[in-house]
Amino acid sequence: MPNVIRSFDRRPADLIAGVGKYSTATIHEAQGRLGALDSRIKPVKQGVHIFGPAITAQCHVGDNLMIFEAINLAQPGDVLVISAGNHAEQGGFGDVLASACRGRGIVGLVIDAGVRDGRGLRQSGFPVFSLGLSIKGTAKETLGTINHPVVVGGELITPGDIIVGDDDGVVVVRKDPAELALACEAREVAEAAMIEKHLRGELTFDERYASMRTKGATWSD
Amino acid sequence: MPNVIRSFDRRPADLIAGVGKYSTATIHEAQGRLGALDSRIKPVKQGVHIFGPAITAQCHVGDNLMIFEAINLAQPGDVLVISAGNHAEQGGFGDVLASACRGRGIVGLVIDAGVRDGRGLRQSGFPVFSLGLSIKGTAKETLGTINHPVVVGGELITPGDIIVGDDDGVVVVRKDPAELALACEAREVAEAAMIEKHLRGELTFDERYASMRTKGATWSD
Amino acid sequence: MPNVIRSFDRRPADLIAGVGKYSTATIHEAQGRLGALDSRIKPVKQGVHIFGPAITAQCHVGDNLMIFEAINLAQPGDVLVISAGNHAEQGGFGDVLASACRGRGIVGLVIDAGVRDGRGLRQSGFPVFSLGLSIKGTAKETLGTINHPVVVGGELITPGDIIVGDDDGVVVVRKDPAELALACEAREVAEAAMIEKHLRGELTFDERYASMRTKGATWSD
Amino acid sequence: MPNVIRSFDRRPADLIAGVGKYSTATIHEAQGRLGALDSRIKPVKQGVHIFGPAITAQCHVGDNLMIFEAINLAQPGDVLVISAGNHAEQGGFGDVLASACRGRGIVGLVIDAGVRDGRGLRQSGFPVFSLGLSIKGTAKETLGTINHPVVVGGELITPGDIIVGDDDGVVVVRKDPAELALACEAREVAEAAMIEKHLRGELTFDERYASMRTKGATWSD
Amino acid sequence: MPNVIRSFDRRPADLIAGVGKYSTATIHEAQGRLGALDSRIKPVKQGVHIFGPAITAQCHVGDNLMIFEAINLAQPGDVLVISAGNHAEQGGFGDVLASACRGRGIVGLVIDAGVRDGRGLRQSGFPVFSLGLSIKGTAKETLGTINHPVVVGGELITPGDIIVGDDDGVVVVRKDPAELALACEAREVAEAAMIEKHLRGELTFDERYASMRTKGATWSD
Amino acid sequence: MPNVIRSFDRRPADLIAGVGKYSTATIHEAQGRLGALDSRIKPVKQGVHIFGPAITAQCHVGDNLMIFEAINLAQPGDVLVISAGNHAEQGGFGDVLASACRGRGIVGLVIDAGVRDGRGLRQSGFPVFSLGLSIKGTAKETLGTINHPVVVGGELITPGDIIVGDDDGVVVVRKDPAELALACEAREVAEAAMIEKHLRGELTFDERYASMRTKGATWSD
Repeated sequence: MPNVIRSFDRRPADLIAGVGKYSTATIHEAQGRLGALDSRIKPVKQGVHIFGPAITAQCHVGDNLMIFEAINLAQPGDVLVISAGNHAEQGGFGDVLASACRGRGIVGLVIDAGVRDGRGLRQSGFPVFSLGLSIKGTAKETLGTINHPVVVGGELITPGDIIVGDDDGVVVVRKDPAELALACEAREVAEAAMIEKHLRGELTFDERYASMRTKGATWSD
Repeated sequence: MPNVIRSFDRRPADLIAGVGKYSTATIHEAQGRLGALDSRIKPVKQGVHIFGPAITAQCHVGDNLMIFEAINLAQPGDVLVISAGNHAEQGGFGDVLASACRGRGIVGLVIDAGVRDGRGLRQSGFPVFSLGLSIKGTAKETLGTINHPVVVGGELITPGDIIVGDDDGVVVVRKDPAELALACEAREVAEAAMIEKHLRGELTFDERYASMRTKGATWSD
Repeated sequence: MPNVIRSFDRRPADLIAGVGKYSTATIHEAQGRLGALDSRIKPVKQGVHIFGPAITAQCHVGDNLMIFEAINLAQPGDVLVISAGNHAEQGGFGDVLASACRGRGIVGLVIDAGVRDGRGLRQSGFPVFSLGLSIKGTAKETLGTINHPVVVGGELITPGDIIVGDDDGVVVVRKDPAELALACEAREVAEAAMIEKHLRGELTFDERYASMRTKGATWSD
Repeated sequence: MPNVIRSFDRRPADLIAGVGKYSTATIHEAQGRLGALDSRIKPVKQGVHIFGPAITAQCHVGDNLMIFEAINLAQPGDVLVISAGNHAEQGGFGDVLASACRGRGIVGLVIDAGVRDGRGLRQSGFPVFSLGLSIKGTAKETLGTINHPVVVGGELITPGDIIVGDDDGVVVVRKDPAELALACEAREVAEAAMIEKHLRGELTFDERYASMRTKGATWSD
Repeated sequence: MPNVIRSFDRRPADLIAGVGKYSTATIHEAQGRLGALDSRIKPVKQGVHIFGPAITAQCHVGDNLMIFEAINLAQPGDVLVISAGNHAEQGGFGDVLASACRGRGIVGLVIDAGVRDGRGLRQSGFPVFSLGLSIKGTAKETLGTINHPVVVGGELITPGDIIVGDDDGVVVVRKDPAELALACEAREVAEAAMIEKHLRGELTFDERYASMRTKGATWSD
Repeated sequence: MPNVIRSFDRRPADLIAGVGKYSTATIHEAQGRLGALDSRIKPVKQGVHIFGPAITAQCHVGDNLMIFEAINLAQPGDVLVISAGNHAEQGGFGDVLASACRGRGIVGLVIDAGVRDGRGLRQSGFPVFSLGLSIKGTAKETLGTINHPVVVGGELITPGDIIVGDDDGVVVVRKDPAELALACEAREVAEAAMIEKHLRGELTFDERYASMRTKGATWSD
């Protein structure tokens, strides 16, 4: 199999946006508590919300050679997903590569490594989800892959998978996006109603008490 | 002993406020360097300062069933203190439960787990001290306890213990609150005077030099 | 050798500023990927940028006795560099010592431990690079050293070494500062040109492709 | 309250042995999944099994001053339980203090720190449960407490509490020891029967399937 | 899709043994540095070497309910691969379940959690690869899956994948097993020849020097 | 400066053996609690004790290219000290390189990375101090240095520095070796006497009590 796979199927943009507009927590619950990446992968700047199909690269630890071709092959709206050895002490992505991503219309980066130029990244507004900031640049020496399946943050990500990221972290869509969007909407409507009630001091915990009683909980007088 | 203990004694609100208004660092020093929880337990949003009596729950790791009854039994002014397995990769508390807390007048949450809906929590203003943000929701299956003593962040917390939290983290009051408030005030007055002197370039380190000399320090010419 | 060495040579201030004005990531690359401290050492407040010669102290873990004499011996423009056992669960530096630093004209602190009074430190504007915030105060009992070489964040730091810190972390200058400043400037000029091109969607990755081809990369059709 | 509390009540030795002879895992289950210390606290040498009443000390991180008086006040059969800052990079206990423990008839040490002289400790046969081996000796400078309650490995330990340790780690007895011994025995008998059946290939999982069906599990054909 | 998938295709036993007899390090290199699980997953007892097709289960963190049905559905020669939340502070597998595995002819367990009854597991000889020993038993409350793909130790494992484990850890076969066996054999023959030469003091590093020279290494006189 | 420095001064072998025969813990104390590497660097096989002058290499994380030339330049009796990015998830040294080391008379390896072929390493008897075992082989692509000073486990090591390793870990000699040997001997004699007394139940803690009294300790009746 070639190292670099040039293309893959992307879902229609409106289908992606239909599910991607929901929060990562809502998507995770609505698809049966699946698809959340390791919580150490967090946005460099709070308040972002991204979604798009994954374009993937596998880098050797301490090396960013493959990121260049991934950017080159990306299409507007893609999310760059990089597996790089689950090591925070490296910063193989900074404001130069961020500018290349922005020039290509890439909507965000997800990487299991550090990144650098934190201030520049924040000012540019390019959304980056990483293990944090690290000064240490990488080598550009070792060959990896583009658009093979990768594991990032403990989750398998295949090119074209829909990625969603916000302040809570990153989730990959595991169900049919159209059905999932409906489930998310239903969940949000129900939660909004619950929140309104709860804020008035009315609790809606009956189901929880039933569960506790079934399990034999005992109460003091 | 029953799983759920409904009530416990709370100190008078003005006594709690009398000590709770001091910073966690001041309280920790003034009571003899006691009571600070593990520093990984931090506020989701900087700039908060909370205090109140602890209402406690013990949850199984990855499970939030017991939080519901803890909220139900709380009184206005309480701090919810949850022991949940010292595991950051779970988010069993988010904006729905935060709204229930706010509806009940609970003043904050302290938990040795992750939480989710970070943006919502920040916008709501409900103070949460946790191991960070995690998308991963919890099960609601396993029985635990309410208002038994718990260990959170390496500190024993008994229902009614006075909890104080700010940007530095969380401390539990270990001394008589009235006496401790006096010690805190004395400490803050002394520190304010030292800070003023220090800012003028006048150091007040004589005691430290005496200590170094006693221990046999040597100086170059 | 005495515990406390009173003085050491400092480079001229304009030489220090000449290299110190560049970002930590630029300096690290320009000197051959050297000198970056462990990425866990981060600023308490984002947006700072400091530089200056290191004045060093070695503290016992959980003890801050030696910080006092280090402040006393510092000169305006110095950066206080403290080796304290690589342990985050201690806060032996807070707003009182920060005021002493400010009174002496010290420009920042770098420490492999926690610090406390996070809100006060942020408000004062005194730049602190640490392992995070911890309530737990330290003892002042155990003798260490002043102005001996220390290892902080995995890097050897000798008194007078030029320290630079920003949002990405801390780097120590390892090359001749005048030559390094030239290399940094050349690098920034080149990067600015690349960024401008990249933002227009023009990639400048030819060198990377040559490297991939040399190593035998294969492409799908 | 004085720093050093000289004495506390110990349960009768046969009562302690009655429960202490069971494995830590059996005790933990039999008392309702309570009392297990953090799994990072492990024996230096496999194959040991200890039990006895806790005599406790609180040491400052990086300091072992209080261990001396704890040994001095111990009685034959005691287990030394030391809270020392939850920090593995210190070795404040080695073969000299182990010999003092053996001379006093202390049956083992539990500490949330490193220890040193690993080879000597193994050869001496004195059981040590710790965060591992560390060369780094401690200061003997800072006052702590003896026979106050301490938190070690996330569990509260009060002087006289029954401590049990084996290859799996350390557990503190939380129930009446006589009743707990009966529950342990019942559990071991039941498990021995299950093991015998299982080894013959007969599974005894009916209760689990009932549980899965209740929760709505579905099977492929 | 049902929670529990009863069956999957297994490769012929001799094909599995043909590749499984090589060391994990050899397999990893021979298939292009792929398939190694996180190094924290290690054998409870040194000196084991296992191989077989994976039967998989997904457990909720802190819960072992699904392990029972996985054992029930296993066939002789299978390796039980359990994804359980990447959390070491739980011991949901001990000597009772090990006896059930042995009764069924299961050849080993791979789990991203702790296990317990360390001494019993070692004595039984049943090979277990885990995050270490933990006393803490699990709940049996929450539904998961059987024979769905799982991620364990950062690697995707699909039922029927060939798993190999030895002292170095665990690897999953990613290439055609027959071809991979040939590549492993070639590698071992070449390494044996190199080792023999090296032990005589003859180095075989020419290729490395060519590489260093290409990259511009410089030597002192 | 060239990448590869071919030679450096070694102390006479009997001088090295004179201090190297003492335990790491004794050396660390006798030279003023200096020189101990991070406790995570541990022997692959217990019971070894090595000493010798350091020959150093700096490798890029995930790359072992420079180890080859370090072995080539080593002399009998040397200890190979490799700085490799403080990352356990790589195994760039196994039984092939161990045989090259043995053929050259190298007495041991110290590395801040993983190694592989654990069983082979143990059987060969070649002493290795590392972050543990990892299957994952490294690239051989990126240039580093030979015989420049390196930081390994938080300690600066310069070629020719005397390295000592045993079960407790690794220490680098920081004082004149002849004087240090005398201090070690004195310490061991004193400790042997203390151990003998302690085993008879006679404590020798007077100095500790004096210290506690000075600090104001209080005792219960």
